[in-house]
Amino acid sequence: MTHSKNTPHYHSLTEHFQKIAHFEHLSALGDWDQATMMPLGGSESRGAAMAELARHIHELKTEPFIETSIEQAEEELLNSHQISNLREIRYQFMQANVVPADLVQAKTQLAYRCEHAWRDQRKNNDWQGFKPNLEALMKLVREEASIRAQAQDLSPYDALLNKFEPGMTTARLELLFGDLKSWLPGLIETVQGQQKNVQPIALAKYSAHTQEALGRDVMKYLGFDFNQGRLDVSSHPFCGGVPGDIRLTTRYDEADFTSGLMGIVHETGHARYEQGLPKEWRGQPAGGHRSMAIHESQSLFCEMQLGRGKGFLTQIQPKLQQHLGSQLSIEDLSQIYTRVKPGLIRVDADEVTYPCHILLRFEAEKGLVDGSLSVADLPDFWTQQMQSLLGIDIQDDYRNGCMQDIHWAVGELGYFPSYTLGAMYAAQFRYSMEASLGSVDDLLAQGKIELVFDWLDKNIWSQGSLLTTDELVKHATGETLNPKFFRRHLEQRYLK
Amino acid sequence: MTHSKNTPHYHSLTEHFQKIAHFEHLSALGDWDQATMMPLGGSESRGAAMAELARHIHELKTEPFIETSIEQAEEELLNSHQISNLREIRYQFMQANVVPADLVQAKTQLAYRCEHAWRDQRKNNDWQGFKPNLEALMKLVREEASIRAQAQDLSPYDALLNKFEPGMTTARLELLFGDLKSWLPGLIETVQGQQKNVQPIALAKYSAHTQEALGRDVMKYLGFDFNQGRLDVSSHPFCGGVPGDIRLTTRYDEADFTSGLMGIVHETGHARYEQGLPKEWRGQPAGGHRSMAIHESQSLFCEMQLGRGKGFLTQIQPKLQQHLGSQLSIEDLSQIYTRVKPGLIRVDADEVTYPCHILLRFEAEKGLVDGSLSVADLPDFWTQQMQSLLGIDIQDDYRNGCMQDIHWAVGELGYFPSYTLGAMYAAQFRYSMEASLGSVDDLLAQGKIELVFDWLDKNIWSQGSLLTTDELVKHATGETLNPKFFRRHLEQRYLK
Repeated sequence: MTHSKNTPHYHSLTEHFQKIAHFEHLSALGDWDQATMMPLGGSESRGAAMAELARHIHELKTEPFIETSIEQAEEELLNSHQISNLREIRYQFMQANVVPADLVQAKTQLAYRCEHAWRDQRKNNDWQGFKPNLEALMKLVREEASIRAQAQDLSPYDALLNKFEPGMTTARLELLFGDLKSWLPGLIETVQGQQKNVQPIALAKYSAHTQEALGRDVMKYLGFDFNQGRLDVSSHPFCGGVPGDIRLTTRYDEADFTSGLMGIVHETGHARYEQGLPKEWRGQPAGGHRSMAIHESQSLFCEMQLGRGKGFLTQIQPKLQQHLGSQLSIEDLSQIYTRVKPGLIRVDADEVTYPCHILLRFEAEKGLVDGSLSVADLPDFWTQQMQSLLGIDIQDDYRNGCMQDIHWAVGELGYFPSYTLGAMYAAQFRYSMEASLGSVDDLLAQGKIELVFDWLDKNIWSQGSLLTTDELVKHATGETLNPKFFRRHLEQRYLK
Repeated sequence: MTHSKNTPHYHSLTEHFQKIAHFEHLSALGDWDQATMMPLGGSESRGAAMAELARHIHELKTEPFIETSIEQAEEELLNSHQISNLREIRYQFMQANVVPADLVQAKTQLAYRCEHAWRDQRKNNDWQGFKPNLEALMKLVREEASIRAQAQDLSPYDALLNKFEPGMTTARLELLFGDLKSWLPGLIETVQGQQKNVQPIALAKYSAHTQEALGRDVMKYLGFDFNQGRLDVSSHPFCGGVPGDIRLTTRYDEADFTSGLMGIVHETGHARYEQGLPKEWRGQPAGGHRSMAIHESQSLFCEMQLGRGKGFLTQIQPKLQQHLGSQLSIEDLSQIYTRVKPGLIRVDADEVTYPCHILLRFEAEKGLVDGSLSVADLPDFWTQQMQSLLGIDIQDDYRNGCMQDIHWAVGELGYFPSYTLGAMYAAQFRYSMEASLGSVDDLLAQGKIELVFDWLDKNIWSQGSLLTTDELVKHATGETLNPKFFRRHLEQRYLK
């Protein structure tokens, strides 16, 4: 694909980005190892090595020849896939190049210190300690946002969104999330009413070892290829590694196997996406995942669309018996996994209340970036929003309030919407899939789960970043993101 | 140490080599991961990423500014440690720079192909398949040796030795090994006569899991710091990682726990050396291990000087009872670990016959490099040497003869002598240590093993490469390498 003599500039760009991908491979390995394997004594030299590597990758991504080569490649005769790759090269170059190196470094250093302090401050509910750090970091975030905005002719918050969701705008999110806000709190109330007399099911304790064996079995059922990846333990589950060698992690709670298990199902969704990215485009920007929302759509497809459905639970219930000796019925599992209960913590939230945590953060981020919300006012804002969205009183509990997530502590704004966009995409994909394949529950009951993944592979995974997000979704489902599918999904599953 | 404004050139060199060390950190991580963790599907992209990294490191090590900066730094006012560091910088630059990049690449590629084919050829005893590959590779090795020789005003084989043992010469090795050859075959015969009526001890089977728990316990006894390292499994045991994060590997044979256990003891010796290298010189050439023979001296000190002695066996025998439920007495262990039995395979050889495998390879390498021994004649040479050194008939068993080691299959000549030099240094260190501390066996019996390691730390580990090998050994023991200590050690332990 890249050897044509008629496209020397395009060709030199692909070679350069292949080189960058090799160094990013090492970066992924270093991150994974740090989270899973590295002993404490390795921190210092690993930190220095990773910083050196990040600097090198940034240098490679901002080499001046890239800009001129892009311009010249645009004059070359490229096929449509090469044109897509060039679009993604331009995007990556712009993202890396637009922010001055000094600002990148200042933000990286401050974020590192802020995060480090936050780990203890959070434990101690120490808002007064965290506040000045966050204020200093927000100043740099606003500076970054404003520079990115100018370069792309976007609003500052849109410029941050574009780091994770190329093409996404605040205006569009306000439409999508405004719709959600109009019906979700009502739905939550109704479902809570329906579930209020349902008694929680007590769970037995199972060792991490036993849970892991179950997890591996479920991963195999979900088509995870252990010749192309691993499962390990880390304190914060993630899906890392590189295509061909995807490294999942999870954590096990002996008293509640259901969370670790569904964590594995979630990460397996991420993993299958990565394992399914187009091999012939490996190492090229067009071969990467489309966006963070599309990535989340794949994990949430597994965890929510499949994982909490009767079809899936029917299939894994015998595995629970086999590995855990569990006596839980399919009805028990369904009840556990569709329990709706507003809570303080985003990552512990169920499928129905989760978007409220995102609505809150989206509003807060917009205000923090445009200056209409000060860091000092954040706790009051949080208290009021938790009350109005979820009916929860949070007063003075900063630890489980605005200090709960790592994202802001490392200066990462603009990411949160991806989670709920992902949930919306996942629902849309399922309905579209069912239009041609019939009910997913039925397919699973017939042992045909691979047809579900074939659809995802054909429509999403194998497309990499060859299409834009809107093109991809339209190509897969006939229309761009439509929030009605998410609503339909929740109503069908939760309203009895 | 590096911030003086009066030493700008020296300072720029230290910064540059620190940068190189950061990339070498990633290289060590990639190697370790490949051997222990990486699934099969990761090979291709890992191979490409590691090749990219090697290329980058080579570019950094051969940047033209280094040569001029070394010259200018030589005019700067440096303290003695800085002068040592500059010597090591010069050495590393010369080693990396002297061979043309084309030759490096040609040899790397050929070695990769040769090794790959060798893995099957060895299994199939396919000398005719291996021979042409080895011939082609030896041609490049001789070319490399000749270029290195010219640049350093050394003989070609000396130039190869110097990659691993700076300062070591063929002439000196001939003296050391000539001495060995004069008494070792006789000693082996005598010891075999003494042991011929001793019945081998049958071993029970133990799971890898159980053996690992024992191994960890023994590593702790040997002072391995698990906050600064790990133990894992790989098909070929090694000690990798970086100071602060040393990664040991071993393999377990359920039918023979004694080999895996002593493998762990051996690698722990390497590990403690790496963990003990001077912290203030981390990332600088003067902070690295002194030479491969000194590295082997530390592993062999643990495995042979300590590991097969009564003092050590007395201490670990209760651990065998505890972890394995083993009923082996201290006498049994001593008999197992001091059994002398000539065999075909170097890596399986006991302490007494091992040097014969090295004498053979040393002679062969000299001949292969100066052209007096052709690859075609290698099997006959092997047969004749095995007969004369160890009294073993090897006829037509190439697999367990000249095809047994990976070293030549990857074009690495000049390394083998390090093993026996290491054994000699280890003996010399023990006698020197005992001159001031008294019997090592007694120290261990008194629970004072840390005094042994304190001596090694003070005299060897903490010195890094600040001294030359001869200076280091003289400083530690009062004289440079003297083979009489190794002879004394073997005679004292094995002649009853």
